[in-house]
Amino acid sequence: METLLEGINDPKDLRNLPQELLPQVAQEIRQVIIDKVSKTGGHFGGPLGAVDLVVALHYVFNTPEDHLVWDVGYQAYAHKILTGRRDRFGTLRQWGGISGFPHREESPLYDLFTIGHGGTSISTALGLARARDHQGKSHKVVAVIGDGSLPEGMALEGLNHAGHIRGDLLVILNDNNMAIAPAVGALTACFNRIITDPLYNRVRKEVEKVMCKVPRFGFRLLRAAKRLEESLKSLLVPGIIFEELGFRYFGPVDGHNLDQMIHTLRQLKNLRGPKLLHVTTVKGKGYAPAEANQWKYHGVTPFDPATGEFIKKPAPETFTQRFGKTMIRLAQADPRVVAITAAMPDGTGLVEYSQKVPGQFYDVGMCEQHAVAFAAGLARGNLKPVAAIYSTFLQRAYDQVIHDVCIQNLPVVFAMDRAGLVGDDGITHHGVFDVAYLSALPRMVLMAPKDLDELEAMCEFALEHPGPIAVRYPRGGVLRFHPELALRLPLESAPIQLGKAELLTRGSDVAIVALGSMVVPALEAAALLELQGISTTVVNARFAKPLDMELFTSIAKEHRAMVIVEEGVIRGGFGMNLLEQLEGLRNGLRCRVIGIPDRFFEHGKREILLEQAGLTPKVMTEAVLELLERGSVYVH
Amino acid sequence: METLLEGINDPKDLRNLPQELLPQVAQEIRQVIIDKVSKTGGHFGGPLGAVDLVVALHYVFNTPEDHLVWDVGYQAYAHKILTGRRDRFGTLRQWGGISGFPHREESPLYDLFTIGHGGTSISTALGLARARDHQGKSHKVVAVIGDGSLPEGMALEGLNHAGHIRGDLLVILNDNNMAIAPAVGALTACFNRIITDPLYNRVRKEVEKVMCKVPRFGFRLLRAAKRLEESLKSLLVPGIIFEELGFRYFGPVDGHNLDQMIHTLRQLKNLRGPKLLHVTTVKGKGYAPAEANQWKYHGVTPFDPATGEFIKKPAPETFTQRFGKTMIRLAQADPRVVAITAAMPDGTGLVEYSQKVPGQFYDVGMCEQHAVAFAAGLARGNLKPVAAIYSTFLQRAYDQVIHDVCIQNLPVVFAMDRAGLVGDDGITHHGVFDVAYLSALPRMVLMAPKDLDELEAMCEFALEHPGPIAVRYPRGGVLRFHPELALRLPLESAPIQLGKAELLTRGSDVAIVALGSMVVPALEAAALLELQGISTTVVNARFAKPLDMELFTSIAKEHRAMVIVEEGVIRGGFGMNLLEQLEGLRNGLRCRVIGIPDRFFEHGKREILLEQAGLTPKVMTEAVLELLERGSVYVH
Repeated sequence: METLLEGINDPKDLRNLPQELLPQVAQEIRQVIIDKVSKTGGHFGGPLGAVDLVVALHYVFNTPEDHLVWDVGYQAYAHKILTGRRDRFGTLRQWGGISGFPHREESPLYDLFTIGHGGTSISTALGLARARDHQGKSHKVVAVIGDGSLPEGMALEGLNHAGHIRGDLLVILNDNNMAIAPAVGALTACFNRIITDPLYNRVRKEVEKVMCKVPRFGFRLLRAAKRLEESLKSLLVPGIIFEELGFRYFGPVDGHNLDQMIHTLRQLKNLRGPKLLHVTTVKGKGYAPAEANQWKYHGVTPFDPATGEFIKKPAPETFTQRFGKTMIRLAQADPRVVAITAAMPDGTGLVEYSQKVPGQFYDVGMCEQHAVAFAAGLARGNLKPVAAIYSTFLQRAYDQVIHDVCIQNLPVVFAMDRAGLVGDDGITHHGVFDVAYLSALPRMVLMAPKDLDELEAMCEFALEHPGPIAVRYPRGGVLRFHPELALRLPLESAPIQLGKAELLTRGSDVAIVALGSMVVPALEAAALLELQGISTTVVNARFAKPLDMELFTSIAKEHRAMVIVEEGVIRGGFGMNLLEQLEGLRNGLRCRVIGIPDRFFEHGKREILLEQAGLTPKVMTEAVLELLERGSVYVH
Repeated sequence: METLLEGINDPKDLRNLPQELLPQVAQEIRQVIIDKVSKTGGHFGGPLGAVDLVVALHYVFNTPEDHLVWDVGYQAYAHKILTGRRDRFGTLRQWGGISGFPHREESPLYDLFTIGHGGTSISTALGLARARDHQGKSHKVVAVIGDGSLPEGMALEGLNHAGHIRGDLLVILNDNNMAIAPAVGALTACFNRIITDPLYNRVRKEVEKVMCKVPRFGFRLLRAAKRLEESLKSLLVPGIIFEELGFRYFGPVDGHNLDQMIHTLRQLKNLRGPKLLHVTTVKGKGYAPAEANQWKYHGVTPFDPATGEFIKKPAPETFTQRFGKTMIRLAQADPRVVAITAAMPDGTGLVEYSQKVPGQFYDVGMCEQHAVAFAAGLARGNLKPVAAIYSTFLQRAYDQVIHDVCIQNLPVVFAMDRAGLVGDDGITHHGVFDVAYLSALPRMVLMAPKDLDELEAMCEFALEHPGPIAVRYPRGGVLRFHPELALRLPLESAPIQLGKAELLTRGSDVAIVALGSMVVPALEAAALLELQGISTTVVNARFAKPLDMELFTSIAKEHRAMVIVEEGVIRGGFGMNLLEQLEGLRNGLRCRVIGIPDRFFEHGKREILLEQAGLTPKVMTEAVLELLERGSVYVH
């Protein structure tokens, strides 16, 4: 039997259906999500919860003429299924397949932006709305934002500006009362509570005071006052903050009641000015295990759809796990150690930490700028803050790193997980710029460990360092490209010293200088070169800043060729810094930098992406051979 | 006669005075500010307006045990005068003198942070407050923030977190209803209006409805209702947004009534939890010309204190002025051109533009993140947005440049004024990182003009470019270090072509490749070298990205030495990128990069700072001579 969904090749087909069939469409979309994501893995609870909302939006609005702008966007799986990507949905987050986020190049008509970072939709949608007005057009613009993204500074900036210029814009607050981490921030708290704080009480007192002044009508007035109180309550909860910002607030509406949503959206569609519709949804809606355990099913690895049980594969320990463990040990040993996450306790490996040392843990919500400046304040107050923020999200706090940490010379530790090519999350999430953007900063120290033990040692070192210091490490564990090669692992490590690299093997022909995640692949390259009779020195740089120029200068003098390899952009990266500092000290040494070339990378397994970027032992050996034979011919 | 101020060497002396003498102290502080700033120049209206507030804060709080955290901070001149820097106040913003902002190294006890960017105080003060609590201390922490800084995303993030964790923190909103630019944003608008929008009207309707249900008591109830309405109004205006965020709101109080402020601050001092005190101040208070024309006296050049008249010096046209003029021309010619500023219409040269083409102008307030994402939306909607943001402030929007512009490949033009060493504003305001942080980004094009005509040509070029593109230019005009040298200026220019440099002079011995502001100094260096018989090729790079590798490769082959010079950090900058891309193509060419070394720079005239950084024709000639004689010995 053909499903309804099979007849929907774009949203126009959806809009041709009678409204009473929409619950069935939503149900079929859910089934696709459950079937496919249980195989591919991906975000799960959020996309399920947003299905009805997405159906309602495409039903009411005339997409793609009307513009839907998503935020973060993994809530847009249903949107993909409705906009011509149903058949490809099984390729979700796979190399060459469709992205886990809205992606412009997948669907220029329906995906207005490629989105992966939170809090952007209001600003970009307002831009679209103003561009429309400038050009005398009249289509609708709708921004969808989750409750977790709303406290992002840029979202609040966007609301503030939108409320001010009073353009025609509808913001949908998709409130699943959870976001990625449990709700944090006063703003989030607003959404679900009856106001019991001083304001509401003051209102009530004022009402009582006035009532007392007309004492003769006590009883009836009391009833009237009660009703007034109720009215005030409903007015004050929870939309007033949006009203204050110049929006008209509507809701909350049940985000799983299609009729109610469609009715409301139709009314709002014809109302001018900035409007916010508060929609409450349930994460995991329609899949019982996910409804029951929203945390566990936020993002999933493959699982059995019948039972919800995850298909367990033995996985080596990850950098993230070791970071979490190390932080527990260090925080328990020193009450001044404090960890800060911006809505990513799970992703940064701090869940167990938050349970074991809750007094030394802050989840500030999706607010990276505040997280860093807050850490600066903690450091000025003599604590030892560790800001655990993904490399890609620390971009949000670049000015705070400069202005509030480096200029102050404060001992804030940055733990940058997901540094390098992130894998399945793709283009918006790669942490490839950090070495470049941090190396430019005076006073910043930047480290990258070759393995988990070294990460642990670097965390210890960082907490003793008296100024700004960052450590970057990749998603997953230590990668082996050639497990057939007999490397002695784990490697022994010398103690960490500021600005000192580690000489791992001493050869006579060529040197490979590797940073962090590329050290073990460099050792593999050396083993491959040995098979060809080439004797290779391998250096674990450890510090991208400051550089161990004593060692590197002697390496430069004692070898014929040097390959520098790093999992970060070449431009401004470790290799480029090293070359410049070797200027005049090289004596004819031939060099080549291997790093991320000057383009964006899509999603796919980390191993595939590293291949694509040329970050493999094979490419390193080829580079060495090329330099030995005929000098560098590397042009990018 | 000795003034009261002469007896105040630190705030304890102030606190020993009887309260009735404080107005005189404030008056004396104002006089110092008027006397000194009229000579040195500096911020003026803001500092004058905040004098009474600063006096009250130091009088009530036990500084430095209690912590005052400023925001932006030029409102803290009075703070400097009261905390041991009265005698040095005449050196304000001068090389070697005191900074125009709070500065940690000037006063480690009283200046908790070195501050120049807006919106930081709440986050850093919250960090201090939590550090205090962690350590069982009980001093007070007060953050002061201006109404212009409050809409900064990070300030809102900070409020939200502070309201959530309910720590003991007092935020002072210094509301001069102006900030730098006229108030923008719905949030700012909140502060001074009676709510006439749907919310207030809905409240009133509800009240009326309830009242109608007890009809017999009409008249008295009407009076009661009126009173209730008034009460509601005062409750709803303007603090509710802070209450919603978990703060207790107090005010507004008159920021020039010392008794009232001291009374209120004393009460708040002993109240636990997050509190916000709304203080209204008048910019320029106490100096009639500045009160009458707040715009004109926001920041001043030297003026006659008796009349308020500025001492006019003939000044050459600035890059800022030319940018503004060019934008008017381009916007009038093409209705799709739109300019965006983040609260800096004056600083970016867009005041006249905003008057002449108001429909193509957006001042989004101090919200750089939103400004860039909003521009992305405008570009997606087929407009041609130009985001005019100082280099140092674009750091605030780094992630938006990456995520919302470069990943989308959208044609947003970034006009980065104050690129390079900014001069008097000092350490927090130098725009020295942009070449590094933008060169790392795929799809970004980055230009720097040698002079004003070239800036104009680059603006035209940028608006035709189909992707992200930035142009950086310094404060002031084109600098001449050696006006005695007969250079033919203005220079003729070839048309701008993507990624093409401009060969200005062709010599035979050495080459100087210069970026933007360093091109004219490079020509001076060439003239100096010619006096010594050295024939110099001078290249105007024009593009820091992409690089003109065709020209640079031939330059590298045809010369013995090459000096690359730029007004930006060496690490990750233009020179480093050029060296890396020349790798293997140099044939023994000796090179040296001259740029900003890896340290922070303080305030002072641009010429002095350029000397300090070694960015002068003299240093260039020395570098050339050194390379010719004995190769590069440059180690930094």
